[in-house]
Amino acid sequence: MTSRKVRVAIVGASGYTALEAIEWLIDHPHVEIVAATSRQANGSMLADMHPSLVRRIRLPVEDLTSKQIAERADVALTCLPHGASAHIIMELLDEGCRVIDLSADYRLSTPELYKKWYGEVHPDPSRLGKTPYGLPELFADQLADARLVANPGCYPTSAILPLSPLLKEGLISPKDIIVDSKSGVSGAGRTPKLGNLYCEVNESISAYSIGNHRHQPEIVDIVHRFSGVAPEVIFTPHLTPMERGILSTIYVHPTSGVTANQIRECLLSYYSVEGFVRVVSHMPATKYVARTNYVDISVWESGPRIVLVSAIDNLVKGASGAAVQNLNHMFGFEPSTAIG
Amino acid sequence: MTSRKVRVAIVGASGYTALEAIEWLIDHPHVEIVAATSRQANGSMLADMHPSLVRRIRLPVEDLTSKQIAERADVALTCLPHGASAHIIMELLDEGCRVIDLSADYRLSTPELYKKWYGEVHPDPSRLGKTPYGLPELFADQLADARLVANPGCYPTSAILPLSPLLKEGLISPKDIIVDSKSGVSGAGRTPKLGNLYCEVNESISAYSIGNHRHQPEIVDIVHRFSGVAPEVIFTPHLTPMERGILSTIYVHPTSGVTANQIRECLLSYYSVEGFVRVVSHMPATKYVARTNYVDISVWESGPRIVLVSAIDNLVKGASGAAVQNLNHMFGFEPSTAIG
Amino acid sequence: MTSRKVRVAIVGASGYTALEAIEWLIDHPHVEIVAATSRQANGSMLADMHPSLVRRIRLPVEDLTSKQIAERADVALTCLPHGASAHIIMELLDEGCRVIDLSADYRLSTPELYKKWYGEVHPDPSRLGKTPYGLPELFADQLADARLVANPGCYPTSAILPLSPLLKEGLISPKDIIVDSKSGVSGAGRTPKLGNLYCEVNESISAYSIGNHRHQPEIVDIVHRFSGVAPEVIFTPHLTPMERGILSTIYVHPTSGVTANQIRECLLSYYSVEGFVRVVSHMPATKYVARTNYVDISVWESGPRIVLVSAIDNLVKGASGAAVQNLNHMFGFEPSTAIG
Amino acid sequence: MTSRKVRVAIVGASGYTALEAIEWLIDHPHVEIVAATSRQANGSMLADMHPSLVRRIRLPVEDLTSKQIAERADVALTCLPHGASAHIIMELLDEGCRVIDLSADYRLSTPELYKKWYGEVHPDPSRLGKTPYGLPELFADQLADARLVANPGCYPTSAILPLSPLLKEGLISPKDIIVDSKSGVSGAGRTPKLGNLYCEVNESISAYSIGNHRHQPEIVDIVHRFSGVAPEVIFTPHLTPMERGILSTIYVHPTSGVTANQIRECLLSYYSVEGFVRVVSHMPATKYVARTNYVDISVWESGPRIVLVSAIDNLVKGASGAAVQNLNHMFGFEPSTAIG
Repeated sequence: MTSRKVRVAIVGASGYTALEAIEWLIDHPHVEIVAATSRQANGSMLADMHPSLVRRIRLPVEDLTSKQIAERADVALTCLPHGASAHIIMELLDEGCRVIDLSADYRLSTPELYKKWYGEVHPDPSRLGKTPYGLPELFADQLADARLVANPGCYPTSAILPLSPLLKEGLISPKDIIVDSKSGVSGAGRTPKLGNLYCEVNESISAYSIGNHRHQPEIVDIVHRFSGVAPEVIFTPHLTPMERGILSTIYVHPTSGVTANQIRECLLSYYSVEGFVRVVSHMPATKYVARTNYVDISVWESGPRIVLVSAIDNLVKGASGAAVQNLNHMFGFEPSTAIG
Repeated sequence: MTSRKVRVAIVGASGYTALEAIEWLIDHPHVEIVAATSRQANGSMLADMHPSLVRRIRLPVEDLTSKQIAERADVALTCLPHGASAHIIMELLDEGCRVIDLSADYRLSTPELYKKWYGEVHPDPSRLGKTPYGLPELFADQLADARLVANPGCYPTSAILPLSPLLKEGLISPKDIIVDSKSGVSGAGRTPKLGNLYCEVNESISAYSIGNHRHQPEIVDIVHRFSGVAPEVIFTPHLTPMERGILSTIYVHPTSGVTANQIRECLLSYYSVEGFVRVVSHMPATKYVARTNYVDISVWESGPRIVLVSAIDNLVKGASGAAVQNLNHMFGFEPSTAIG
Repeated sequence: MTSRKVRVAIVGASGYTALEAIEWLIDHPHVEIVAATSRQANGSMLADMHPSLVRRIRLPVEDLTSKQIAERADVALTCLPHGASAHIIMELLDEGCRVIDLSADYRLSTPELYKKWYGEVHPDPSRLGKTPYGLPELFADQLADARLVANPGCYPTSAILPLSPLLKEGLISPKDIIVDSKSGVSGAGRTPKLGNLYCEVNESISAYSIGNHRHQPEIVDIVHRFSGVAPEVIFTPHLTPMERGILSTIYVHPTSGVTANQIRECLLSYYSVEGFVRVVSHMPATKYVARTNYVDISVWESGPRIVLVSAIDNLVKGASGAAVQNLNHMFGFEPSTAIG
Repeated sequence: MTSRKVRVAIVGASGYTALEAIEWLIDHPHVEIVAATSRQANGSMLADMHPSLVRRIRLPVEDLTSKQIAERADVALTCLPHGASAHIIMELLDEGCRVIDLSADYRLSTPELYKKWYGEVHPDPSRLGKTPYGLPELFADQLADARLVANPGCYPTSAILPLSPLLKEGLISPKDIIVDSKSGVSGAGRTPKLGNLYCEVNESISAYSIGNHRHQPEIVDIVHRFSGVAPEVIFTPHLTPMERGILSTIYVHPTSGVTANQIRECLLSYYSVEGFVRVVSHMPATKYVARTNYVDISVWESGPRIVLVSAIDNLVKGASGAAVQNLNHMFGFEPSTAIG
């Protein structure tokens, strides 16, 4: 553990994941937020942009170069759109600043996969496949020395955690895994768009991006990375009239003779009582994990299928809580510091 | 068509489906609501129980016998819990009153199925399997002469309509059909329970009754009745933080060589432009069908699966709008009267 | 009453008030919607812009000139921002098209008042003060022959209706009338803005425009026009986490000796049982008037004050329902046609 | 400060204020929760009653006598209905257990006032008027030695804090103060009642208890206690479709010549930057204080009135956060411990 506080910069401070990270980090005993950047910086303070922060943090929003950020901070949390993120991260790493990237830019294993799903040539292809995926529950040993960590996507977190141990242990078939996910609206960001307006979202649930959402390959890729098995995943995200939370209902085929109880025991053995994954016997609900870093998973039978239900807060375990958790691993703090 | 107005009794007037039926029937040009009953009747008016009805209808809430109801009304809409419903319906039919039953009592085809899923011996077993299921889109020819119609369940409506033609035409496999449904809270009724409180439901989505919800056998039974094929249905209902609406995301395997387009064409050919089923090209959302009798269905590809998405208003097409539609068929009115 | 259908154009069809007007007018037996315009017209259909309209109306969205609109339509409902509205209305009137204006452009009585509150010189000053204010409950006799009607503001409707009779009859003091109003989010329109995002509005109530909202002078002006008394109104609007509805809590001083009961009787005598104002004894709630053209008003005592509580649906009686009501008056239809 | 942890009992653990207190106290470094009681105790664990607590606390729910509670705990947080609370508190105090009472039983100054507003003879009249009112911002000096603290009501907190300094300093008139308050639904508790159902509350705002809510005398009594002036308060609470939060819009008459700026300066001078009251220049919103112990207050002009707007989280500063704050004062901890 370092003796002085770790200096953190929030890069791209205007959105919901940035606000969420700041609120958690304010209470972190070993961390100091030293910069908040935005291209919309206009001399105002962070609390002008996010009024809940009045008197909790006193920091200007600045339009800083990567060099300036690296001079001030030990680690940057990049809360930027994909594409934009990689360019700044390359500079930050060159300048010696460690990075936890909340975008999708370094999650996938190959430039080909990135090109296919994000439609662009990756500017930093050599780091793909070598950047740790920031799910400490599965990849903790890769985080301590990492200069760059790819913070997981929100939907993938809710699917990778229940699926990975079961596939690794051969308890379920890799074929025809259906992940039906329901997300709160904050996952769509803070940029004004028709689809995010209160009057469009309220009293309405709908599916979107059926068959072509970018989190589908992320789930497959990372489950494969952990378990050695590339599953066939049918993924459908839904926009749900709530602010936070993801509930994923996951339909799997148990391998021959495997019972729901064996599946439950497997998950319990992987996710010890010290961690953030709670294998519960009640029915998970997003409310029970709201504003916590917990992942609730339960196991059910439904005809020939086993149904796994997982719940997270998309802004916490699905984004900024995970980022703090990763920071704790990277800097040697107790993993649940400030988020336990 | 009758020359005088059809006299309708609302039996069990305190809940949401009763209120919804009343609001639609008030505007029906050929109908007169002549009675509203409740065992909680205490001399008050219907508008005391449902303040939105002030000045729209002037009717006392009464605790009437079946005989009294039958003397006043040509048809009763029974908005009662299952079990309670069948006993009253037997009496109403004996007294010559036609019935549209919003409970589940007459939906299933056999007493054995009823016993298995509702845990009780059916008091009126001979009518099971002979009572028309009130989905005019599939069973219109059975409704005109019916003394009793079993109004469909809300979830089943959203699944039976997309699945039935496709199974009948052999375009999809009957195996491993996954119906992942999301419902608003009004489906749980108006009786105060912890699980229906605002603070429990708000900002929370959760699954329930996985593998054992009573609407699963209803879907299988009615699809079988229409198509001759008994499908394997994995059904998961979810409670969603909204008042109204059901969205069902249905994962099917197309039979060999069948395309999404063929499936779409099949649905279009079954559901003509005059009816309430809209085969749409946009992504259905519960908001787009809210407070209407429409069923929106769209067809998507996702890996090897075809995904059918359907949306209804659970209180309208999923309950009271369907009841009015059935009433129109039973009494020879234009099918969309008052709900078009 | 005209023998053929009245031809209506919806000018500015992309927003919530336009959609609401269309949905009511579709069911109007004496009206035909003949045009829907938008400057964003791109060859698409109305139902592409508003998917709830699929199969309910088949009309392109067009970018029409005032002349083209007037050639097709007997009356235009202008759903445009203030300022933009007056310019088009002058042309429409010149071309012989009658107009119901949902903007604020013709509500105030003088150009000076308009300049003060809207910051611009009114382009059509001679019509101010001569254009009927479309509250048939107070100004019905001015509507039949009107070429142009100023459709009331949403907040003003909720305040003018309870206050006007009481001030005219001298039952309350014109001094220190406090109107504390709570509105759903649809009042803020359909243009994407940070403040209308689901995640900003949900679980949050806040006041805005304290002491300087443009509906304050509208309330004062119109109450004065009806009652001859210019009241002192302290008006505070609030943004409430719901889609529809306005609840106004209005604190008045009764004049010496006047009781709550006398105030109630006065309102009852002004608002007969045939109309849309319901003087109720229960506590009004926006839910009880949602999607109706009703105005619920009740009267309460609180210390030395009388508290009037009124509830409307801001999109119906506060906008498009009132527009249909005005249309009925302008064309000689029964006042509640299509909205009763 | 004590060297060992303060042992806390939660008396009446089933409701929302109890859950909220437990969640804050879990993170309190100097506190240990040693008991959770409920008359509905049935051998289950606290986390069965509140699933969000799984793995965060391991404690049975027990039906304990006051004596048993006092043996285990240094202080009890009583989360019980008024009436029931006083009886248990008398016993707890007799047994030597300190108490923070979240009910209304010890807030008012006289038995007469209690009898008038709560309809019953107070069982412990001698403690009325002598029990500190737990608003440390106003009465901190009374808390350190207190055996019993009356935790403030939610609405009163939002009104007493802005009003008290202004009345004490003579900046506003005590006459005709209008407090128009909007509360989230959690204030109504967790007991299933029709009025708290999702489908009743959602998309609806309404006033209630106009002119006779029990928090009106509490506001008057406590403002009087602090400032020496008994104000005339017209209080109207509203039920708002959200889970948490109170926004109070308070209309006052400034005394002659007093400006909004002087009022703002007065509040700033009373509520130092170390405390939980934030005198802000932006418009308060319940979202900005949600899940914090902050009170946001701002000052506005509206005609001859000054409008004070205050926002709190009703479950935190309006209930359980205040209880923790009081506990900190009673046991000599830094006032913001665990809630800062």
